[in-house]
Amino acid sequence: MADNEILVGKKPLMSYVLAVITQLSEGGGEVVIKARGRTISTAVDIAQIVKNKFAKDAKVGQVKIGTDELDAKEGGKINVSTIEIPMSK
Amino acid sequence: MADNEILVGKKPLMSYVLAVITQLSEGGGEVVIKARGRTISTAVDIAQIVKNKFAKDAKVGQVKIGTDELDAKEGGKINVSTIEIPMSK
Repeated sequence: MADNEILVGKKPLMSYVLAVITQLSEGGGEVVIKARGRTISTAVDIAQIVKNKFAKDAKVGQVKIGTDELDAKEGGKINVSTIEIPMSK
Repeated sequence: MADNEILVGKKPLMSYVLAVITQLSEGGGEVVIKARGRTISTAVDIAQIVKNKFAKDAKVGQVKIGTDELDAKEGGKINVSTIEIPMSK
C-alpha cells in the first residue's frame, strides 16, 4: 500500500480522521481513503468529517467503487465491495 | 425523489438489485442508487452485483458522497453521510 493510502479498519473513527488530516497537511496534500465491506460507510463518514469540520479547503476527488475477491475461511472465494476516496488540499 | 432513483433501505439486497436491473432495461437505461448512513456499504454491493453478475454492459458513473442534516429524535440535528451511485446502460 502506498504511503498516502489509509485503509479503514477497526480503530476508532477519529484516529482515521486524524490520519487523513495529518497526511493532507504533511504528506504532499494528497491522501486516498480505502475501505472494504461494512467499513465503506465509515470511509465516507471520515471523508465528510474531514471536509466539513477540519479541512474545509480539502477537495474530494473521483470516488471509485469496485470488487475484491478474497479467500474464504471455509475455502472458495468471496466477493467484497471496495471504495477509494481520494482527497487533496 | 425522481422516478429513476432507488433509495436503499431495509428490504433484502436482491430486491434492490432487481429494481436497478428493471430500471436499467425499462426506465430509459439510467438509475441512481442512493443511500444514507450504514446502508452506504449495501448501495455499493448492489451496484457491484448488478455490474458483475447481471448487467455486465452497465456502467457506473461519477459517484457522489455528501452529508445530510437530519432532525434527531432527541431534538437538535445529526449529520449523516450519503452516497449517490449513477448507473447507465
